[in-house]
Amino acid sequence: MTLWRSRIPGESDPSAQALNSSLAVDRRLGPQDARASAAWARALTRAGVLTPPESDQIIAALGAIGTELETGVFGFQETDEDIHTAVERRLAELIGPLAGKLPTGRSRNDQVVTDFRLWVLDHLPALDAAIADLQTALLERAEADAAAALPGYTHLQRAQPILLSHWWLSHFWPLLRDRERLEQVQRRTGQLPLGSAALAGTAYPIDRDALAADLGFEAAVPNSLDAVSDRDFAVEFLFSLALTGVHLSRLSEAVVLFSSREFGFFEIADAFSTGSSQMPQKRNADIFELARGKAGATIGALAGLLATLKGLPSAYDRDLQEDKLPVFMAYDTLSLLLPALTGALRSLVVNRERMQAALEPDLFATDLADYLVRRGIPFRQAYEISARVVRLAGEQSVPISELTLADLKRLSPAFESDVQAVLDTSRSLAQRSARGGTAPEAVAEQLKEARRAWSHPARNAQGGKG
Amino acid sequence: MTLWRSRIPGESDPSAQALNSSLAVDRRLGPQDARASAAWARALTRAGVLTPPESDQIIAALGAIGTELETGVFGFQETDEDIHTAVERRLAELIGPLAGKLPTGRSRNDQVVTDFRLWVLDHLPALDAAIADLQTALLERAEADAAAALPGYTHLQRAQPILLSHWWLSHFWPLLRDRERLEQVQRRTGQLPLGSAALAGTAYPIDRDALAADLGFEAAVPNSLDAVSDRDFAVEFLFSLALTGVHLSRLSEAVVLFSSREFGFFEIADAFSTGSSQMPQKRNADIFELARGKAGATIGALAGLLATLKGLPSAYDRDLQEDKLPVFMAYDTLSLLLPALTGALRSLVVNRERMQAALEPDLFATDLADYLVRRGIPFRQAYEISARVVRLAGEQSVPISELTLADLKRLSPAFESDVQAVLDTSRSLAQRSARGGTAPEAVAEQLKEARRAWSHPARNAQGGKG
Amino acid sequence: MTLWRSRIPGESDPSAQALNSSLAVDRRLGPQDARASAAWARALTRAGVLTPPESDQIIAALGAIGTELETGVFGFQETDEDIHTAVERRLAELIGPLAGKLPTGRSRNDQVVTDFRLWVLDHLPALDAAIADLQTALLERAEADAAAALPGYTHLQRAQPILLSHWWLSHFWPLLRDRERLEQVQRRTGQLPLGSAALAGTAYPIDRDALAADLGFEAAVPNSLDAVSDRDFAVEFLFSLALTGVHLSRLSEAVVLFSSREFGFFEIADAFSTGSSQMPQKRNADIFELARGKAGATIGALAGLLATLKGLPSAYDRDLQEDKLPVFMAYDTLSLLLPALTGALRSLVVNRERMQAALEPDLFATDLADYLVRRGIPFRQAYEISARVVRLAGEQSVPISELTLADLKRLSPAFESDVQAVLDTSRSLAQRSARGGTAPEAVAEQLKEARRAWSHPARNAQGGKG
Amino acid sequence: MTLWRSRIPGESDPSAQALNSSLAVDRRLGPQDARASAAWARALTRAGVLTPPESDQIIAALGAIGTELETGVFGFQETDEDIHTAVERRLAELIGPLAGKLPTGRSRNDQVVTDFRLWVLDHLPALDAAIADLQTALLERAEADAAAALPGYTHLQRAQPILLSHWWLSHFWPLLRDRERLEQVQRRTGQLPLGSAALAGTAYPIDRDALAADLGFEAAVPNSLDAVSDRDFAVEFLFSLALTGVHLSRLSEAVVLFSSREFGFFEIADAFSTGSSQMPQKRNADIFELARGKAGATIGALAGLLATLKGLPSAYDRDLQEDKLPVFMAYDTLSLLLPALTGALRSLVVNRERMQAALEPDLFATDLADYLVRRGIPFRQAYEISARVVRLAGEQSVPISELTLADLKRLSPAFESDVQAVLDTSRSLAQRSARGGTAPEAVAEQLKEARRAWSHPARNAQGGKG
Repeated sequence: MTLWRSRIPGESDPSAQALNSSLAVDRRLGPQDARASAAWARALTRAGVLTPPESDQIIAALGAIGTELETGVFGFQETDEDIHTAVERRLAELIGPLAGKLPTGRSRNDQVVTDFRLWVLDHLPALDAAIADLQTALLERAEADAAAALPGYTHLQRAQPILLSHWWLSHFWPLLRDRERLEQVQRRTGQLPLGSAALAGTAYPIDRDALAADLGFEAAVPNSLDAVSDRDFAVEFLFSLALTGVHLSRLSEAVVLFSSREFGFFEIADAFSTGSSQMPQKRNADIFELARGKAGATIGALAGLLATLKGLPSAYDRDLQEDKLPVFMAYDTLSLLLPALTGALRSLVVNRERMQAALEPDLFATDLADYLVRRGIPFRQAYEISARVVRLAGEQSVPISELTLADLKRLSPAFESDVQAVLDTSRSLAQRSARGGTAPEAVAEQLKEARRAWSHPARNAQGGKG
Repeated sequence: MTLWRSRIPGESDPSAQALNSSLAVDRRLGPQDARASAAWARALTRAGVLTPPESDQIIAALGAIGTELETGVFGFQETDEDIHTAVERRLAELIGPLAGKLPTGRSRNDQVVTDFRLWVLDHLPALDAAIADLQTALLERAEADAAAALPGYTHLQRAQPILLSHWWLSHFWPLLRDRERLEQVQRRTGQLPLGSAALAGTAYPIDRDALAADLGFEAAVPNSLDAVSDRDFAVEFLFSLALTGVHLSRLSEAVVLFSSREFGFFEIADAFSTGSSQMPQKRNADIFELARGKAGATIGALAGLLATLKGLPSAYDRDLQEDKLPVFMAYDTLSLLLPALTGALRSLVVNRERMQAALEPDLFATDLADYLVRRGIPFRQAYEISARVVRLAGEQSVPISELTLADLKRLSPAFESDVQAVLDTSRSLAQRSARGGTAPEAVAEQLKEARRAWSHPARNAQGGKG
Repeated sequence: MTLWRSRIPGESDPSAQALNSSLAVDRRLGPQDARASAAWARALTRAGVLTPPESDQIIAALGAIGTELETGVFGFQETDEDIHTAVERRLAELIGPLAGKLPTGRSRNDQVVTDFRLWVLDHLPALDAAIADLQTALLERAEADAAAALPGYTHLQRAQPILLSHWWLSHFWPLLRDRERLEQVQRRTGQLPLGSAALAGTAYPIDRDALAADLGFEAAVPNSLDAVSDRDFAVEFLFSLALTGVHLSRLSEAVVLFSSREFGFFEIADAFSTGSSQMPQKRNADIFELARGKAGATIGALAGLLATLKGLPSAYDRDLQEDKLPVFMAYDTLSLLLPALTGALRSLVVNRERMQAALEPDLFATDLADYLVRRGIPFRQAYEISARVVRLAGEQSVPISELTLADLKRLSPAFESDVQAVLDTSRSLAQRSARGGTAPEAVAEQLKEARRAWSHPARNAQGGKG
Repeated sequence: MTLWRSRIPGESDPSAQALNSSLAVDRRLGPQDARASAAWARALTRAGVLTPPESDQIIAALGAIGTELETGVFGFQETDEDIHTAVERRLAELIGPLAGKLPTGRSRNDQVVTDFRLWVLDHLPALDAAIADLQTALLERAEADAAAALPGYTHLQRAQPILLSHWWLSHFWPLLRDRERLEQVQRRTGQLPLGSAALAGTAYPIDRDALAADLGFEAAVPNSLDAVSDRDFAVEFLFSLALTGVHLSRLSEAVVLFSSREFGFFEIADAFSTGSSQMPQKRNADIFELARGKAGATIGALAGLLATLKGLPSAYDRDLQEDKLPVFMAYDTLSLLLPALTGALRSLVVNRERMQAALEPDLFATDLADYLVRRGIPFRQAYEISARVVRLAGEQSVPISELTLADLKRLSPAFESDVQAVLDTSRSLAQRSARGGTAPEAVAEQLKEARRAWSHPARNAQGGKG
């Protein structure tokens, strides 16, 4: 069934029909279409277009259709051009010609974008919850692994000792920004296009603010042309999904590295490991590789949607139909990734001995420079002395902790016997006690702040410190 | 000059040096580097690392360097690896070994991202102002062109009459969303990384909250690893630029169309038109074509930065250096586009006669259906009758307004002699009086709302109606 | 069923299992998997690993499985991790433990990429044929519309008269480049990875060249690590699809414009037109809008796959699994678009009167300059005189053809009474007779060249002129 | 100076002028513009438009201008709108009004794309040479490191022993594909647009084939509309650059990993290493990180250019101006990366001891399964036995080589005392002797094939085996 066949005679060419049909994608909007249609029936009733009994009959039938759609028993037909046509057809089957009154003052242009916004609003909370769950796993790990220290890396080279808790928390904050952003996307999504009709506004006395309230939107979009052509909410949502995807990819890359034989810091639990079809000894971190790999597709989906929107003149062009698939795909991807990563992190085993063993004395070279700074040497000069210490140790093939005081004094008279105390993980960590640093008490403070922020990403979004 | 040559002996290979140097790009951060360094000197002083006289001397010299950088007289050297190295070298030239105390407890890792955030914060207001200017031009046009009506288009086919004011305003609201988003990006950008040192936090008792306040940041980033590896602010800013670019491309496409000989609705003023090198009669809308074309590059810049970030393990990897060029390019692009578009819109001449002529009777086909709805016919049936009216007129090669009442009555007995009144632009416009519609009073209301929102995009961002 | 459960005890977590399963996507490789497996069985037999009876039994069963897969009756199970596992499971159901000999010396790593290359090789010809069909439609149009002239546009402004045939052919050549490129992609795709096992090469004496020949590949990939990690063929194929998508989008944009009421050059046949759900008078070119819009997604798919591959260390990483979906999607998109566009172009009605009417005298301004050049005036000066002619006509609100000779002579004494002859479409067209120009005989020549090239895009690819 | 000011009176608005100017980007086309202009003068002379003395004077002046441009002494003026205008202005300064004859029958539309194609053709060989140099370094390494073995990795887990030579060569072949592709891009780029004028073809009797030959093109583009609007060559070149960038990123990721403390396989030479500004002990592989990071921008440049082209109607739209910057940037990026990576690979130190140490017995688990296969056990069953061996060893916390024969026999009676021989690197390598495998003689053969292919990437492109 198409809604416009009386206008253009004859049959569509099969190739045109196959291309035109969007049902394979937009059928996911079914429940939203039924819900928005019921609200529209109420709005038409308030406007005097439908009588209350008509409205009741329509709404009851839409309720039944909604149930059919949600339970998967709705009978789609090959000829249904899209979800709106399918619902309108089914409505006519159920209640006859009265169904023909529902589209009064409404168009597929405002209908589809209303359905799509509703879909986003319906699914945002689950996504936020899945991210929040992953954050919870990170917080739990930060608490459980409080005693462990490992090398922090820059350029994938061992840099300085850090607390493992600090490292876990470094993956908490990006997700908090994601949740803040989602909340803002939610606000901008919660603007109602319905009542804009095809492009110029509805010709019936619809109270769009009441309609917005009925459907749980914050307000009505203030311009009917913008209402039917704007897809910013979809792009923003997709951007947010893509950036979360990038965050997961960065965490995943680190877990893949740390689970390698060479690092040996993490062991992924059996329930989250994968084997090889040919190499019996393999234990792979496929889940994390998939998270890393799938971030590519979400970036592509974003670039693709932006390219589709670029250069479209308002108001509605059919190109806009291509808005849904990238959003659905990116949403589905994250919905699959987040619980798997959360479970995998929760069950991951930390190998503290391997971490400890990696904390070699060279990691204290900055502490050595700082030691000299405390003896009055400008940092840049202290850095150079410390660099010479590292080179000397290298020439002797020993760690810097095994150089003699005499060796050190040849490089700078400022070295004293207390220098050995500097080459110590606990001491090094403790030095970094400024807010945000890796010192145990700073990390404990940070953990508290993270717990507070977790409950109120929005407050954070407004710039407070939680 | 490099800051680490004492560590690794010998000279860099020229090819490595050429690749390593980031000065061509990051020199733009010069003023921010000098400013952040001065704040760092004050923080070191508060922490007791520098004496007040040392601090004064350093800050005075940094002030001079900042001036050199801003006025373009700073003497960069080929061997300066990056802007930080250049500033540190210059400082040493001015004040000698004391310069070596400034990098105490700081690293290029936290320094560069602080500079970059400062740069974004410094430039956001100008961008917001340029967008707001374009919005003002749209508001002015909406007011000046209040009397004009033209066809609204969907699928690039004439659809229904709309007010030109309404059309101008449809391009105002997307820009308002852009400004809301920029304000939120500003908040998330205003988190200070400085004091995170290389990755683990500074080993000196720096009050990072005071430092944040000194530099105009809202707060300090709560995790030092995240602080040096996070580039979300840059990606978000870039996304916002890209989406604004898409908005400008859509407006521009419409202006290009409307300025064509075929549409003839707009004439671009001489000062904003371009000619051809071979065809003397040409008047081109190059400015708008450039806006449309350049949106592609900003989309690409966004996709590219996301691809660069994907899969990077924390904390700092050198890949992160590639964050600045895409942001600078997208910012420069919009800074060039916005004033040109603003000027071009302000001076554009509207041809009301051509618009009027385009308002052919077929555009009232929906009004005809609505006429039948008011006579009790369900919309879907009314639509079909109206479609048959259009086909009949097509067969007779006349506009629907020239069909006789007898003709109409053959299609539906519901037609009466008052049907002619329906085929009228003013009446059609006036019907669409619900909030957001194209009726003159609804547009007047919308214009007021737009003016209020213009001053407070933020309030809008928080969901209010202005 | 998983192939590695004996290695890692216990059950996979459901979230991990859901993420790990690639069957929803890679089931499309089923027929290829069965075919490649049969070839592998033959190779193992030649290598003495399987006896001929064993091989026969395996190959027969794989044939049956292939039929099940192609006819859609294959019974997938929820626990099948991927298509390879499903086929191996089914094989064991059919022939028992003997099935366990098939994976000898083979891994999913070389298997999946062999299947995928086979899939591309299987589907390339249909794609080439669909593009060639569209080219044929363009050639037919070029022939049928030989008598029509219309304005050529630059910057969407009328520029110079051109033949409609010439315009149709301008969309033929990009598609020829696409077919050339596809042929080259086919060559690079036809390199066999099988026999590379997991990464290091098979440990059995497989004759990989014979295996390549058996499966219709040109050669065996010369390095086993590259064989399992290389996805260049997929990216290249995707790039080719994306560029074809861009070509279709450009053609489509032009058709949308030309079908608008304002241009009025084309009318899309009923069987390829679409109506509106609310506006009974609408006839939309949705098919072409969809072609334009869907180009965005294919660009995004390409960017996404490149982002996925970026930074992957060899040999096989699970991220590589994400190679198939973007290729399938882009292929499906073009497979849907091409026949619809072909049909729509074939049935499109050209309105020569509207084209003729658009050929206003200003379009001969370049011819006027050329007239002066033939009278010895340097082109740049002739251009300026012609530009002044255009301005004078504009001031008088007449076309340049209605200026008097006296008017013209005031601007340049070189004008004579024969100047009127210049302002003529046929003459203007005929002037452009150099190869590639719009003169009728040049276009006739071009059409011949196009027909020759159509049959041999490859020869063209090697630089010949057909 | 603009070329069209006589058409449109008054001054351009400064904002429009700033936006319109493309000189900052297209000045790089200066030498090509001078060269193509001289060829055009010769073509005009052959066509009888210029006299030989006129032609000589113009060509001599263009020669001088070309020299000015190449040596950097050309005096650009702020008012030069683009490179073509600048060259035309300079020509007029040198030879007066005669300069005005050069643009006869030519437009900036065909001129700019001819210049750009020339630029690509001029720069392709250097790029090919730089890639070939990197290949040479890989071949040298493959030869020099022939004796070294290391674990091959899949999923970043140790998988099976491979030869280091084999690994180096796995990075050779992708670059060969890049060079093949470049050669094909070169062919498609070598089609001459000049003589197409603005869009409809030149109105003068130009022999375009002779002109093509004069400029070193293979042929003339057969359609003037396509000639001025086609940018496929630029997109293809950019795609090729982006894919090479991805190849470099994959190699680089591996080098970063292998140079980490944890792997310890590679040490980057001092001349290619970078230090830290705060951590004196650091040695970083910045060069490889930059290669990895910069691949993102080239992917973005490609996506951006495709987005710019999408939906552009032919023939010339100003959006097309945005074609050059992404190509220049990607080219410059690779021109910077390739020599640095080549030098770094050449001077890199391999630590064979660390490689050797990483070849732990578990890597022979597949060999163990193959051992059982040779004793008649189907592979899938042999895999399971081998997996149980690995688990048993894990439970006993010993490598599989330290399990007793009794232990093994409990898992399968097929194990005999000769099983120990299987757990050996040389034996494992030697087993993989099929074409493309890691066995020493197969790698030696591969190396020969690589050397042959290096000299003739084209022959390879045509499907031969070199």
